[in-house]
Amino acid sequence: MSFPLDYEHSAPMTFGGAMPTMKSFDESRVVILPVPVDRTTSYVSGTRNGPREILEASSHMELWDEEVGVDVHGVGIFTLPAMELPFGEMGELVGEIRRVAADILSREKFLVTLGGEHSITPPLVSAAAAAFKGLSVLQIDAHADLRDCYMGTPHNHACAMRRSLEFAPVTQVGIRSMSTEEAEAAPGLNTKIFYDATMRKDPNWIDRVVDTLSGPVYITIDVDGMDPAIMPATGTPEPGGLSWYEIVALLRATIARKTVVACDVVELSPLPGMMAPNFLCAKLIYKILTYQFAGK
Amino acid sequence: MSFPLDYEHSAPMTFGGAMPTMKSFDESRVVILPVPVDRTTSYVSGTRNGPREILEASSHMELWDEEVGVDVHGVGIFTLPAMELPFGEMGELVGEIRRVAADILSREKFLVTLGGEHSITPPLVSAAAAAFKGLSVLQIDAHADLRDCYMGTPHNHACAMRRSLEFAPVTQVGIRSMSTEEAEAAPGLNTKIFYDATMRKDPNWIDRVVDTLSGPVYITIDVDGMDPAIMPATGTPEPGGLSWYEIVALLRATIARKTVVACDVVELSPLPGMMAPNFLCAKLIYKILTYQFAGK
Amino acid sequence: MSFPLDYEHSAPMTFGGAMPTMKSFDESRVVILPVPVDRTTSYVSGTRNGPREILEASSHMELWDEEVGVDVHGVGIFTLPAMELPFGEMGELVGEIRRVAADILSREKFLVTLGGEHSITPPLVSAAAAAFKGLSVLQIDAHADLRDCYMGTPHNHACAMRRSLEFAPVTQVGIRSMSTEEAEAAPGLNTKIFYDATMRKDPNWIDRVVDTLSGPVYITIDVDGMDPAIMPATGTPEPGGLSWYEIVALLRATIARKTVVACDVVELSPLPGMMAPNFLCAKLIYKILTYQFAGK
Amino acid sequence: MSFPLDYEHSAPMTFGGAMPTMKSFDESRVVILPVPVDRTTSYVSGTRNGPREILEASSHMELWDEEVGVDVHGVGIFTLPAMELPFGEMGELVGEIRRVAADILSREKFLVTLGGEHSITPPLVSAAAAAFKGLSVLQIDAHADLRDCYMGTPHNHACAMRRSLEFAPVTQVGIRSMSTEEAEAAPGLNTKIFYDATMRKDPNWIDRVVDTLSGPVYITIDVDGMDPAIMPATGTPEPGGLSWYEIVALLRATIARKTVVACDVVELSPLPGMMAPNFLCAKLIYKILTYQFAGK
Amino acid sequence: MSFPLDYEHSAPMTFGGAMPTMKSFDESRVVILPVPVDRTTSYVSGTRNGPREILEASSHMELWDEEVGVDVHGVGIFTLPAMELPFGEMGELVGEIRRVAADILSREKFLVTLGGEHSITPPLVSAAAAAFKGLSVLQIDAHADLRDCYMGTPHNHACAMRRSLEFAPVTQVGIRSMSTEEAEAAPGLNTKIFYDATMRKDPNWIDRVVDTLSGPVYITIDVDGMDPAIMPATGTPEPGGLSWYEIVALLRATIARKTVVACDVVELSPLPGMMAPNFLCAKLIYKILTYQFAGK
Amino acid sequence: MSFPLDYEHSAPMTFGGAMPTMKSFDESRVVILPVPVDRTTSYVSGTRNGPREILEASSHMELWDEEVGVDVHGVGIFTLPAMELPFGEMGELVGEIRRVAADILSREKFLVTLGGEHSITPPLVSAAAAAFKGLSVLQIDAHADLRDCYMGTPHNHACAMRRSLEFAPVTQVGIRSMSTEEAEAAPGLNTKIFYDATMRKDPNWIDRVVDTLSGPVYITIDVDGMDPAIMPATGTPEPGGLSWYEIVALLRATIARKTVVACDVVELSPLPGMMAPNFLCAKLIYKILTYQFAGK
Repeated sequence: MSFPLDYEHSAPMTFGGAMPTMKSFDESRVVILPVPVDRTTSYVSGTRNGPREILEASSHMELWDEEVGVDVHGVGIFTLPAMELPFGEMGELVGEIRRVAADILSREKFLVTLGGEHSITPPLVSAAAAAFKGLSVLQIDAHADLRDCYMGTPHNHACAMRRSLEFAPVTQVGIRSMSTEEAEAAPGLNTKIFYDATMRKDPNWIDRVVDTLSGPVYITIDVDGMDPAIMPATGTPEPGGLSWYEIVALLRATIARKTVVACDVVELSPLPGMMAPNFLCAKLIYKILTYQFAGK
Repeated sequence: MSFPLDYEHSAPMTFGGAMPTMKSFDESRVVILPVPVDRTTSYVSGTRNGPREILEASSHMELWDEEVGVDVHGVGIFTLPAMELPFGEMGELVGEIRRVAADILSREKFLVTLGGEHSITPPLVSAAAAAFKGLSVLQIDAHADLRDCYMGTPHNHACAMRRSLEFAPVTQVGIRSMSTEEAEAAPGLNTKIFYDATMRKDPNWIDRVVDTLSGPVYITIDVDGMDPAIMPATGTPEPGGLSWYEIVALLRATIARKTVVACDVVELSPLPGMMAPNFLCAKLIYKILTYQFAGK
Repeated sequence: MSFPLDYEHSAPMTFGGAMPTMKSFDESRVVILPVPVDRTTSYVSGTRNGPREILEASSHMELWDEEVGVDVHGVGIFTLPAMELPFGEMGELVGEIRRVAADILSREKFLVTLGGEHSITPPLVSAAAAAFKGLSVLQIDAHADLRDCYMGTPHNHACAMRRSLEFAPVTQVGIRSMSTEEAEAAPGLNTKIFYDATMRKDPNWIDRVVDTLSGPVYITIDVDGMDPAIMPATGTPEPGGLSWYEIVALLRATIARKTVVACDVVELSPLPGMMAPNFLCAKLIYKILTYQFAGK
Repeated sequence: MSFPLDYEHSAPMTFGGAMPTMKSFDESRVVILPVPVDRTTSYVSGTRNGPREILEASSHMELWDEEVGVDVHGVGIFTLPAMELPFGEMGELVGEIRRVAADILSREKFLVTLGGEHSITPPLVSAAAAAFKGLSVLQIDAHADLRDCYMGTPHNHACAMRRSLEFAPVTQVGIRSMSTEEAEAAPGLNTKIFYDATMRKDPNWIDRVVDTLSGPVYITIDVDGMDPAIMPATGTPEPGGLSWYEIVALLRATIARKTVVACDVVELSPLPGMMAPNFLCAKLIYKILTYQFAGK
Repeated sequence: MSFPLDYEHSAPMTFGGAMPTMKSFDESRVVILPVPVDRTTSYVSGTRNGPREILEASSHMELWDEEVGVDVHGVGIFTLPAMELPFGEMGELVGEIRRVAADILSREKFLVTLGGEHSITPPLVSAAAAAFKGLSVLQIDAHADLRDCYMGTPHNHACAMRRSLEFAPVTQVGIRSMSTEEAEAAPGLNTKIFYDATMRKDPNWIDRVVDTLSGPVYITIDVDGMDPAIMPATGTPEPGGLSWYEIVALLRATIARKTVVACDVVELSPLPGMMAPNFLCAKLIYKILTYQFAGK
Repeated sequence: MSFPLDYEHSAPMTFGGAMPTMKSFDESRVVILPVPVDRTTSYVSGTRNGPREILEASSHMELWDEEVGVDVHGVGIFTLPAMELPFGEMGELVGEIRRVAADILSREKFLVTLGGEHSITPPLVSAAAAAFKGLSVLQIDAHADLRDCYMGTPHNHACAMRRSLEFAPVTQVGIRSMSTEEAEAAPGLNTKIFYDATMRKDPNWIDRVVDTLSGPVYITIDVDGMDPAIMPATGTPEPGGLSWYEIVALLRATIARKTVVACDVVELSPLPGMMAPNFLCAKLIYKILTYQFAGK
């Protein structure tokens, strides 16, 4: 957008808002891709508003990280416009997401995708697995999402990780809801499950999680992996789940010990009038960027 | 549901709640069919909650109609359980809705279907047209819904009346939103449009609407046909629209002059904490039943 | 409800929704009794909506329990219709609740009652104490509810445990709000109080709680016993309180060491648009059933 | 409340807020009495918050009336503190309301009572009828409230006008909901009903309403008498009802032609976050005061 | 924003969303300027979110106008980024708004400003009056906004029209709230007031309003000028006010008979979860553009 | 307010509501001063409603403290009316707050101020520092609030502690958000920062915090210092933060070891329909009073 006027203004749909250092796409090391996929019939509610609210919230966040003692935004964070949803069939949409993600990854960007439903994750994993040999996936989630088919389609969000397993092994953290069908299928799949009810019994559970990851790592965060106390804004908010400092510690350890190549944050379904969950998502993403780029 | 206990209880998912006269399916002249079709990913919001909230509201409504001076519930109002949504593809679901509706109509019931999205209307019209020769359709709606295809599917709610036209001619009332594509297609279709902006200029507009209807009549009410002042609980609430007394007068005149065989009320997307729109839908349906069965 | 049609449908007011195994009342070991008692003047809000929202939420829950590794729903969970509120006087209602509960317990069912106000608990305890010699009560609650009379009636929810003490001794857990009158009366009553502010100082507090229970056990859960972080949907949300894993551990230990005969979950007052508290109640009840019936 | 400090402050629980002219009780011609009766179990919601929200809203309203061209607040508007609800039984509460109202009326004040439920009206009418010979009542309401007994008590809000008829004849305006029992009883009662569905057919309907009133007049306004479009904040919001200019015109005509001695506004059940209905109630009351005291 | 990827995407902060014809600033005849100033609004707050929600809503609106039978978006509608609020003092901000507006008007654009508070209007009127000799202002509003100073500043929104009068005469429509001070000052000011309570008594009131306007016209719409039934989302929602068809007819007549040069829509304070008011604002603006550019 | 009637009533804008012992200003040891200043808060707004909601909530709280085993309200808690906001410029308002606070402190009252924005704290600290030699400040907050100037004013809430440092040294607890500018300035300021991310690593962190305080202590609590799980009702809810038992333990230790002379609770921005955060603030204040006055 170019125009011949000069005045102070923000770019409200940019992650971080009006940051001191705004870089071009080519100069930026981070690319934010909003993918507001959600099969709702109206524009009132649902995960389709997740990306918009995360970006809006991010413009109210400080860019300094007091834990690490650094402000990383200068590496360049470029926010792409939201993908349109041009298809009725999820199958075609999946192909398009894969194509766009592959293009971004081929330009050596750190890709952060904002959902939308969890059904956008398989094509992202597929693109990452093609770009990075030996990729493994860290999934933070309340639900195993290991159904082979649901509601008549293999692309339902309840099948997201079953589809992702076609491209890379998965480590699942915070799991506390699965069907009997999934429970029976899990042992035969290339997935390691850390159940929320028991994983904290080992004080080194974070290290154990990271130990299971191999090669480059893709991180997918279904926000319902966190405690509904801090994340009520999601479709099926399961009691239990990760606290803020648990998820932050897990991400820090993963980034410290592994090469993380891309991530997504999905299933935020904003609650009208309640900003805390949206703001948390914005800070969570900036925490990932801080750990990833501090000192670089 | 049978159990060997005896105590006072309501049947909360029954239209009208715990009415003095509860009749069996066979004895009932009216059958309520909830069809909560909505492509949402979670159970929080959307038109999928429409039928539930209409039924809940209906249990708080009085059964006497002070305008006509009658209580018609004794004709028997039987509420079926909500149809499950077993398919990923709208196409298959459409077939199932048609089959169930045809079965009910074949038993000489007055069928009232509760949506859910407007995409459930074409199979209902199809079933009614097969059962009643020469059927015409009265549609109350803000949107023409005449797109041939939308979001990659011919079964989208934006195509509801284009599909319905394959089975019967349609009279559209309250229209105040349509695309350029629809505006161009409309003259070639078997539809008569009463635009909200102009229809009241003729004080006899209601008679003119009824004049366009021929043979038995199916009525489809998209709740957004009404003024958002009284009906804010819908996906795209267009300013303008029918007032309560306008829609009631139109329904009264239609039922008085024509043989109405079935109807649906769709696109209610309940607003959390606001009961008025849900209650209005319940009363609107009972008004239809009152006009239909008073004196019978 | 019988009807001559065949289609897939759920029973939305059934705990667990459309479960694979639906058993008759006689075959079921568990009976769910909704008692939506609440003195509100309208249908908009309050604890009267608690049972409805718990049942609705329960239909979105998985039936597998990943902690115990079992799906217990096959023992049969039968949901009765909600009790009507036929009386103006709480005194009469109390008698009716007692009668119905006694009938259910006499049929060797595990009774789970859904409130509604806490004032429904005394007749439930009364019925259980009559059926099970030597009964004791485990109460999870923020409030002692030990007033002898409140707002002019001995049946107010603020008197719920004072009334219950007429039938059985009580162990109170999570208490963090009481009046000076109650504080003075407590030492003379047959109750053991575990104050929320201090009970966790003993790492074995759960065992100490269970130690105080004798004979068969009735469990009453006022949802405000939990932390408002996870349970904001209640009338007087007191800061502090049990976390999800604390309440689950307490229930597991109680069921493991004692014979639990019935329970209730009361005082959920749903917040419009926020599903997490409703969903938590549904899962809490299913956790109790899982612990109670796993391996049986 | 007296204190030895001097600073600018408002009296937020005073009708009109910090008005230029604040008069003592004795000097004031108008007395506002909040009676937040509501049988709810918690403080979250319901008509108990009606008086508080009307007073809060009233402090944001202008004191000039542009229609009449006058600012009447100088006659003195004194707001009493809210009555406590000291009894469990409505019967005792009714006696106390009558006693307090009688005391105020004996001091030649214009009494404006803020509800709370409609069940507070009978004792107010009783006190007014005792003070003013030949009193009649103007009721604006969606519901006839003519049940003889409801939920086991003759003091339920559904019986409010049946009880009031024991003290004075009633004219009912805006009625559009009644039970079969009420419809049968009405002809035998000393009440004239103007049904909402038909009353506007006579362009002189307002004069006809006022014609039915005799002697001094008490006005009771159940806010659900108005259209839910402008008054969604009530327990059972019936479609139809009076518009703002209709209710204002009716009040103006009544005050112009009759001697109005007191009034109440009841059944406002505030919707969280929506100020318009609360504000409307504040302005409605100030309109009554303007018509009553302009030129005096 | 430029990037080397190709995919379908919308520009969510563009009025009209992803329109078929997107023109550059220079080619566009319409310029949308969001000015989310929110500093002194009272009672309910949040006008800073008004522009964002209007733009979001506008992307869900059809571009065809069925009343006029035209789709005008092809004249080019260019949405500028929102002005930042760089100053603590409203005085400085006022100067900046004037400078930017003057720049846009000098480029022969039809300027549509989205507020924010009404305090942004005076600098917009000032810029328009400088650009167009003999300008007059049409104000649609519940409040006269004629205070000379409020809360210690002459730039408060309660002073918006008093300030605007320094640049052009004003015609005020829908007025139904003013202070005694304003009522006394009004006769001495260059303003014509059409009071909401009385203006409809003349069936030709719209013509009479337009008759008062001279020269080029600036239109300022405070959304609270409309009926709270359709516009509850504003700080002080006064009962009464213009209906949708009244405001649309007034705008149509004004544009038909006068040369309108710019307009603003201010004081939308979105209600969380309720889309209808936001959507109405979007359609209102598009109605203005349709009347302005149809046939051009 | 005096009036010649006798009936039971509460004083709803009194902290604690209708307490058994109501003392005069002179007799009371505690004075509650509501200061609903809300002018520059960003993102989500409404701190002006904080005092009102805290007072309302406080009337539903029990007066007995079960942890300490005492009911302290008998020392006298006098609630002043809310300060009006008479000025456009924050600078003048600051002077007025200081004057009133100094007056109250000179009367040997324990002053509890209810915000409103954090910008009210500097004049309160200034008054306390003048009254109590050697004062230090304990700040519980998510934000450092150390900016020298923000939005063009030194009185913005983002500058609250930078201003307070002009009067006393500050210890900051729970900090987890600060700008790069603040991070650079902090080492040169007379402040000790306990970062939320790291402070709990020392199990004696509370003692270490108290050790840093010298002389009499003023406590300022920005509610966003607490975890958004229990305190979502604030403008920028930062993840992390103090739990209920952490903040209570910190306050207990501070009061036990130091002489606390006054405190404030600021930045509560109530969420419509959600009472838990308001209720928490009321209990937090009563906890402070209990610790302060138990045994006195």
